[in-house]
Amino acid sequence: MPTAAILGAAGYAGQETLDRLLAHPALELVALGSESLAGEPAAALDVRLNGHLPAFVPNEEALAAGADVVFVCLGHEEAAALAPPAGTIVVDLSGAHRLADAALYPTWYGFEHPRPDELARWSYSVPELGQPEPPLVSNPGCYATAALLALAPIADLLEPGSVVIDAKSGVSGAGRSLKASSHAGFVLENVSPYRVGSHQHAPEIAEVLGFPVCFVPHLLPVRRGLLATCYAHADALRLRERLDEAYTGSDVVRLLPDGAAPELARVQGTDAAEIGVFSDRATGKAIVVCALDNLGKGAAGQAVQNANLALGLDETAGLRLLGVLV
Amino acid sequence: MPTAAILGAAGYAGQETLDRLLAHPALELVALGSESLAGEPAAALDVRLNGHLPAFVPNEEALAAGADVVFVCLGHEEAAALAPPAGTIVVDLSGAHRLADAALYPTWYGFEHPRPDELARWSYSVPELGQPEPPLVSNPGCYATAALLALAPIADLLEPGSVVIDAKSGVSGAGRSLKASSHAGFVLENVSPYRVGSHQHAPEIAEVLGFPVCFVPHLLPVRRGLLATCYAHADALRLRERLDEAYTGSDVVRLLPDGAAPELARVQGTDAAEIGVFSDRATGKAIVVCALDNLGKGAAGQAVQNANLALGLDETAGLRLLGVLV
Amino acid sequence: MPTAAILGAAGYAGQETLDRLLAHPALELVALGSESLAGEPAAALDVRLNGHLPAFVPNEEALAAGADVVFVCLGHEEAAALAPPAGTIVVDLSGAHRLADAALYPTWYGFEHPRPDELARWSYSVPELGQPEPPLVSNPGCYATAALLALAPIADLLEPGSVVIDAKSGVSGAGRSLKASSHAGFVLENVSPYRVGSHQHAPEIAEVLGFPVCFVPHLLPVRRGLLATCYAHADALRLRERLDEAYTGSDVVRLLPDGAAPELARVQGTDAAEIGVFSDRATGKAIVVCALDNLGKGAAGQAVQNANLALGLDETAGLRLLGVLV
Amino acid sequence: MPTAAILGAAGYAGQETLDRLLAHPALELVALGSESLAGEPAAALDVRLNGHLPAFVPNEEALAAGADVVFVCLGHEEAAALAPPAGTIVVDLSGAHRLADAALYPTWYGFEHPRPDELARWSYSVPELGQPEPPLVSNPGCYATAALLALAPIADLLEPGSVVIDAKSGVSGAGRSLKASSHAGFVLENVSPYRVGSHQHAPEIAEVLGFPVCFVPHLLPVRRGLLATCYAHADALRLRERLDEAYTGSDVVRLLPDGAAPELARVQGTDAAEIGVFSDRATGKAIVVCALDNLGKGAAGQAVQNANLALGLDETAGLRLLGVLV
Repeated sequence: MPTAAILGAAGYAGQETLDRLLAHPALELVALGSESLAGEPAAALDVRLNGHLPAFVPNEEALAAGADVVFVCLGHEEAAALAPPAGTIVVDLSGAHRLADAALYPTWYGFEHPRPDELARWSYSVPELGQPEPPLVSNPGCYATAALLALAPIADLLEPGSVVIDAKSGVSGAGRSLKASSHAGFVLENVSPYRVGSHQHAPEIAEVLGFPVCFVPHLLPVRRGLLATCYAHADALRLRERLDEAYTGSDVVRLLPDGAAPELARVQGTDAAEIGVFSDRATGKAIVVCALDNLGKGAAGQAVQNANLALGLDETAGLRLLGVLV
Repeated sequence: MPTAAILGAAGYAGQETLDRLLAHPALELVALGSESLAGEPAAALDVRLNGHLPAFVPNEEALAAGADVVFVCLGHEEAAALAPPAGTIVVDLSGAHRLADAALYPTWYGFEHPRPDELARWSYSVPELGQPEPPLVSNPGCYATAALLALAPIADLLEPGSVVIDAKSGVSGAGRSLKASSHAGFVLENVSPYRVGSHQHAPEIAEVLGFPVCFVPHLLPVRRGLLATCYAHADALRLRERLDEAYTGSDVVRLLPDGAAPELARVQGTDAAEIGVFSDRATGKAIVVCALDNLGKGAAGQAVQNANLALGLDETAGLRLLGVLV
Repeated sequence: MPTAAILGAAGYAGQETLDRLLAHPALELVALGSESLAGEPAAALDVRLNGHLPAFVPNEEALAAGADVVFVCLGHEEAAALAPPAGTIVVDLSGAHRLADAALYPTWYGFEHPRPDELARWSYSVPELGQPEPPLVSNPGCYATAALLALAPIADLLEPGSVVIDAKSGVSGAGRSLKASSHAGFVLENVSPYRVGSHQHAPEIAEVLGFPVCFVPHLLPVRRGLLATCYAHADALRLRERLDEAYTGSDVVRLLPDGAAPELARVQGTDAAEIGVFSDRATGKAIVVCALDNLGKGAAGQAVQNANLALGLDETAGLRLLGVLV
Repeated sequence: MPTAAILGAAGYAGQETLDRLLAHPALELVALGSESLAGEPAAALDVRLNGHLPAFVPNEEALAAGADVVFVCLGHEEAAALAPPAGTIVVDLSGAHRLADAALYPTWYGFEHPRPDELARWSYSVPELGQPEPPLVSNPGCYATAALLALAPIADLLEPGSVVIDAKSGVSGAGRSLKASSHAGFVLENVSPYRVGSHQHAPEIAEVLGFPVCFVPHLLPVRRGLLATCYAHADALRLRERLDEAYTGSDVVRLLPDGAAPELARVQGTDAAEIGVFSDRATGKAIVVCALDNLGKGAAGQAVQNANLALGLDETAGLRLLGVLV
């Protein structure tokens, strides 16, 4: 059975990747990397983890453990500096390898990319829009995944300058580290836009679509889930037809029937995504809405999906797709 | 001291209007109308209400009580059918008199207006954008108030076809009546767009701005508060200058300094509004964000403000504007 | 493969039972009963349900469909009137058959039991505390399950008069029907006790423990999950030993290590339960805390667990027990 | 007009004290102390604060500013080390001077009290239970205030060993500093008990009641508000009579009519408290429930109330008591 390692396993993305691997029938977890928990048993992360898992080791050690696939759940800059062992399949959940153009990193990420020549070797993959090309796979951002599932199949039907993406995400999108904007006293009964006009997921959306987009994220008082409401001058009927073609047969992305709106609650805790298409009565603009779980299809679920494809396994093995929880 | 009556005092807007009148130094509440609570003491609505208030009476009786100002907190269709006593100042918080064009009612409200010729007699008033002309004052919708505070002073600087208004509101915006979409089992840990492309506040925004707008509301898992994120092709710097002119000196609307984002928490429970202006790095579009409390500046607070102006009282008497609650 | 029917499949408990059956490897769903959705396809309940499921039929028809096991997810009084086909295994998720003493129904449930002589034929079963005796199985209440998992194994070690159970539940415990106390405008940013001193789960707890208990439930601003904090004069160390014996080896109930507190988030969406034991520094009282999901171990999860046992299947087939979601 | 200073004005309790002083008709704020914001204008704390307030200074400087009353909103240990200027009225919102017995500090607060002989000079005051004796006033803990409002007037009617206090608080009770248990990813859709059997408010409750109590706090997914559910062997009818005597005429504490339950939403953002009294059907125990805002009557509201009394001002000047917000 192929083996897997997780770097940064104590963060949200790492824990969710671990969660998928616990249920994965064809991938064996052999190394859990974490600087903060190195030396601790797996239960130090979560009381639900029993003794059958490996203890935490430093990230470098997990990287060198010889796993067939390594999930990188580190900070952007830390991941950018990583030198993966030759031949190992790597799925990087950070933003370190999402932009093809290294010159964009200082502007959008705030650091000079330490290995700019490596960027061309990474394959950016939303599997529904194109297969990953291993061994180096860059897992898209949560907002970018939602925006691209909504817009990439229809990009040529949109008037580029008209595209607006208004997105809303639960607080887990900001990670487990402590910051004032993740304090529950700030988040509860509150909503606000952040990094308005300057969020780092804008350029990766633009690279795929082929034109710049206006993208504004908002923080929601929910634990998890993300909704992107996308606006453009376009014919909603044609968009629906095209999206229907794109996602018919998909176990992961669900195009909702006419009139039905995506909602967070139906995708929370899952690796699925929902899309709805609407026409604006007053202006005729098209509105495409995509909902997904920022930690599922927006991070760990898609990472495992990419790893499955890279390893030649069943695409949805280990994913959370079933169920109609209230 | 001038006197006031409230019709529909048992709903959210009615209770909030009552709340402002309890603190009002120059307006005396003389009649509380409610079909469901008629005959009950005021405490039947809220245990905090003591014996000094009048008991509930049927709405018709409250309307005929001879008050100087009547606050109408009824359903749209019910309010549209109302025949106010001549000379009485009426502030209608419903949508019954917001649209100048009666032909729009079947499309946007789902009913034929019963008194189409009366519409011309009503003055639609966001006080910061123009004084109400009594005696008949139509209080703007919550979404419309936010969109208009953000966009009306700058309407001529925007490219009309580019305007998108993505709005998010707490559940109290949907009123106190019981419906599946207000059930906490649906609202909690959820967000979804609703009446996409067909919400009845779109035409009242368009009537003021002078062009149609694409407007989509979303339901938030918060009790109260509303945020409108408005997008347009425009020069953000010029917008900021114009908005600064418009709101300098206002006790109600606060233009935030460059870089600061409006948030629900700071306006909840108040009758104030906050506005922030941003420029999108990738596309140069302007983004204007307005936050207010849907029950405050978006309903009862603005209604009392309109009543104050109509009666010649201090504009902000009875309003909740002070304070820096956590 | 044995077959199953659900009566009242459109309510929360029904939908959650359906959710478990969708993932069940050894139980085939053959009938979905619902008065409100009869004639509609399964997707009328939830857009995630595809065409492979039977359409909704009236409850009587689902009951007569010849399924090997029938899950009854109806109101208390409606379920009490039901005459199950001879030999069919029935798991009743309502309170209709939980109390052995029919005389208690008017006081605690507000109706005279229509079939008092049948009560003796029903087996009340928290499986960890005793196997169900088919064919008629009464599934315990959500609060009762939490209280009994915490207290039943240690009942003889407690001073009966000292027992206090302070419980807190998410809003889904009150069902999908519309009521003022489930309106999100009431639930959000709120907490309050309800049916203080008179909740109908008190007598079923008392029947199992053998003495009356003081039980007060509170409504939480969460979608799902339940926490029972139980207090008694007792030696916490002995309680921990006894509970450790009771739950060692259980895949469903997890006794937490010394010092660790149960929490809702870890059991939400699962059929597991968590228990923590503490000693009060000031008074020496013992405190036993149990967390579970009111719709999981507190309803549908336990119902499927009971059905599995009654049918001789793997006890946890179809249950949601895996995972360490953030 | 008497003058006031706030030490630790950038924390939650400090900001809420400032909020009350902004609305206070007879107390002038002259100094805002904060180590983290020293040198910054008042608006650095909250964008709603305008230029009329003093800038932040170091706490020592604020203490020495010659104010008539100093509100101490510092950490317990820091406040314990403070040497207030002779004659100045000090209201300490920390726990530094709440316990008469210095020997309790290492056990309950984790530090040796640095000025044990000073404790006898401080007056612990819930004003409804006894006037503060200036100049040194210790403001009670939020949980203790709720428990004492419920139990102090009836302490002699209770069987001491039977008393259990199960309390639930919003996250602002844990302060503005960043900690894992205040991260919204932990708080949302979660509830858990904490410091079970060892919370530092237990001994101050015990000192007032005259006997030890079993007290367990729980963290709620709400921003603010606190509910204490208190259990005891006692006659609920006699308790109600006694509490009615205690609070008739109070503008701050409201005894609810028979059958009505306190709730967070009605006291949030206010300085009022609500009490309900119930009898348990099964055991005859009495249940007394108190709701208040942990930052209002549980902190800043009571601090200003104590300051008003100490200065001979109107007891409720500056308090937030009016209103029936939805």
